[in-house]
Amino acid sequence: MNVTVLAGGVGAARFLRGLVQVVDPTSITVVANTGDDVVLHGLHISPDLDTITYTLAGAIDPERGWGLAGETWQAMDGLRRYGGIDWFNLGDRDLATHLHRTQRLRDGAGLAEVTGEIARAWGLTLRLLPVTEDELRTMVTVVDEGEIGFQEYFVRRRHDVEVTAVRVAGASSARPAPGVLDAIGSADVVVVAPSNPLVSIGPLLAVPGVREAIEAVRGRTVAISPIVGGAALKGPADRMLRELGHDASATGVARLYKDLAAVLVVDERDRDLQAAVEAEGVRAVVTDTVMSDPEVSARLARTVLDAVQVGR
Amino acid sequence: MNVTVLAGGVGAARFLRGLVQVVDPTSITVVANTGDDVVLHGLHISPDLDTITYTLAGAIDPERGWGLAGETWQAMDGLRRYGGIDWFNLGDRDLATHLHRTQRLRDGAGLAEVTGEIARAWGLTLRLLPVTEDELRTMVTVVDEGEIGFQEYFVRRRHDVEVTAVRVAGASSARPAPGVLDAIGSADVVVVAPSNPLVSIGPLLAVPGVREAIEAVRGRTVAISPIVGGAALKGPADRMLRELGHDASATGVARLYKDLAAVLVVDERDRDLQAAVEAEGVRAVVTDTVMSDPEVSARLARTVLDAVQVGR
Repeated sequence: MNVTVLAGGVGAARFLRGLVQVVDPTSITVVANTGDDVVLHGLHISPDLDTITYTLAGAIDPERGWGLAGETWQAMDGLRRYGGIDWFNLGDRDLATHLHRTQRLRDGAGLAEVTGEIARAWGLTLRLLPVTEDELRTMVTVVDEGEIGFQEYFVRRRHDVEVTAVRVAGASSARPAPGVLDAIGSADVVVVAPSNPLVSIGPLLAVPGVREAIEAVRGRTVAISPIVGGAALKGPADRMLRELGHDASATGVARLYKDLAAVLVVDERDRDLQAAVEAEGVRAVVTDTVMSDPEVSARLARTVLDAVQVGR
Repeated sequence: MNVTVLAGGVGAARFLRGLVQVVDPTSITVVANTGDDVVLHGLHISPDLDTITYTLAGAIDPERGWGLAGETWQAMDGLRRYGGIDWFNLGDRDLATHLHRTQRLRDGAGLAEVTGEIARAWGLTLRLLPVTEDELRTMVTVVDEGEIGFQEYFVRRRHDVEVTAVRVAGASSARPAPGVLDAIGSADVVVVAPSNPLVSIGPLLAVPGVREAIEAVRGRTVAISPIVGGAALKGPADRMLRELGHDASATGVARLYKDLAAVLVVDERDRDLQAAVEAEGVRAVVTDTVMSDPEVSARLARTVLDAVQVGR
C-alpha cells in the first residue's frame, strides 16, 4: 500500500512517527511544506523538512519539538557578540544540516535530491520530498508591522501578534518537485497531516497542480484536524484561523478541506461536531488524535488508513 | 606616527601583536590579503582577516595558530555525517564570524565595513582593512591536479604538492577598498609583514594601484623577510619560492621587494646574507625575527620603525 502524506512540521512529524510503524516506510512519500524556508546568514534553512527528518531519526529535541537533542549553542553565542541576527536559533549540530544543504544547492543539486541525501544520512527509508524546488515564501501580514516573512512572524514575534493576511510568494511560478504529483496520483491513501491549514498545508496547495492532483484523488484522501476542542495543540493555527475569518474548529477545517478529502479525522473531544463536519460533505471519523506518544501516533495512523479502506 | 602594515595571516598577526605594544593602535592601519578568502557552504570566509582579529584579541588557538581557543566542533562532526566538504575545519565559535559576515554582505554592507565591525566586536582599536572589497581569488596550479583554489591547496592538499603557477583571479578588475591607498600614502612607515611573498603579499600587490602606492613611498617602507635560514617558519613559502624559480632566501625576498621597500629586516641567522641583500639595492637590518613570544614581536616592531627613522 502506497501512502502519500502532505506535511507541515511538528504535527506531521509526530503522525509520521506512527505511520512508519504500521506501513512499510519504503512505500511512504512525504510531500513537505517549504513555504517557511528561509535564507539566513547565507544558509538555506528548511524547518519543516528538518523537523520531519530529525523526528523520524529519533534525534529531535523532545522538549523544544524542533532542533536536535543534545544540541550546543556556541555559534549562536558568537553571533550575539556581533550584535547580528540572533532571533532564529541555530544549534551547532543543526548548523551542519544547513551548511551541507547550502553547499549542495550551490553545487547545482535540486532541493529534492539534497533532502533525500540528508534523510538517508539520518537513516530514513521513506521518501521525503519538498513540495517544490522553487522558492516558496509564506509571507504574513501582522497588524503592527505589515508583511513579514513566516519565520519572523513565527519565531521573532513568537506568533503572538494579530495576522491580517497570509500570502505565498513565489507560488504562481513554482513547479511541483519531481515525484510530487506522481506520489499523489498513484497513492492508495493520501493523508493531509494535522498541520496548520493556512501556513503549512496552504503553501503546499498553492503550488500549481498540487491542489488539483489531490482533488482528483479526493475519495482516497484523509485529513486529520489540527484543531482539537477549538484549539491548536501547538502553534497559532486556532488564533490564525479566527483572525482570517475561519472557524477555529474541526468544522472550520472540514470547510477548508472539503474539496480535497473525503474523510476528516477529528478528536474524541470533538465528537459533538461529527454532524456539523458531515454537513460539509466530509465523513467524520472520531478517534484520539493527541499524539502524546508514538503508540497513539501508530493507532491514529491505522485509523487513518482504515478510514479510506472502509470508504471504498 | 601612522603605521600601515601589509599583512597576510599568521606571521603578520604575530608581528602586529608586537606593533600594538610600541605604537598607539589607533594610528595603525592593517591592509590584509583577501586572496585566500573562500565561499564554502554559502559562507564568506576570510582566513587572514580572522587570524589577525583573533590573534590581536588574544583569542587565537595558540597550538593551531588559526581559529579560536577553546573551540568545539559539533558542526564539523555533523557535516561528516552528510559526507559533505569536511577538509576545511570550521569551529562552532568561529562559524559565528562567517555567519555574521555573510549576512552583513547579503545586507549590502561592504567587506571593509563588516571587517571593522567584527574587529571592534573583539575589542581591536587598530583599523583592519581588506585590500579590496571585490572578489580576489588566489589560484594555485599544482602538478598533479591543475589549478585549484588557494584553500584547496593550503588546507585540503596541506600545501604538500609541487606548485607550477600562482594566479590571482579577479585582480585586474579589483579596486582597493576605501581607505587603502590613503593609508599607504599617508603613513609615516609602511611595513610589509613577514608573510608569504607569493600568495599573501602577492595578491595584495596585484590589486591595481596598491603596488604603485607602495613604490611611491618606498623610502619609508620596510619589509620583514618571512624566510629565515632558507626556510619558512610556517607554511610553504620556501618550497613555493623555489618551485616558482625564486631564491628561498632573504636575498630572494630582497629581489622580490626591491622596488617596494628601502629596507629588508632579516634574521640573525641570515647575517651572512646582508651584503647580498644590499647588493639588490635594499638596506638590510639584522635582528631576531622569530616571534616566539610577544616580547620578541615588540622588539622586532621597534626595530622596524627605527629602521625607517634612521634611514631619514
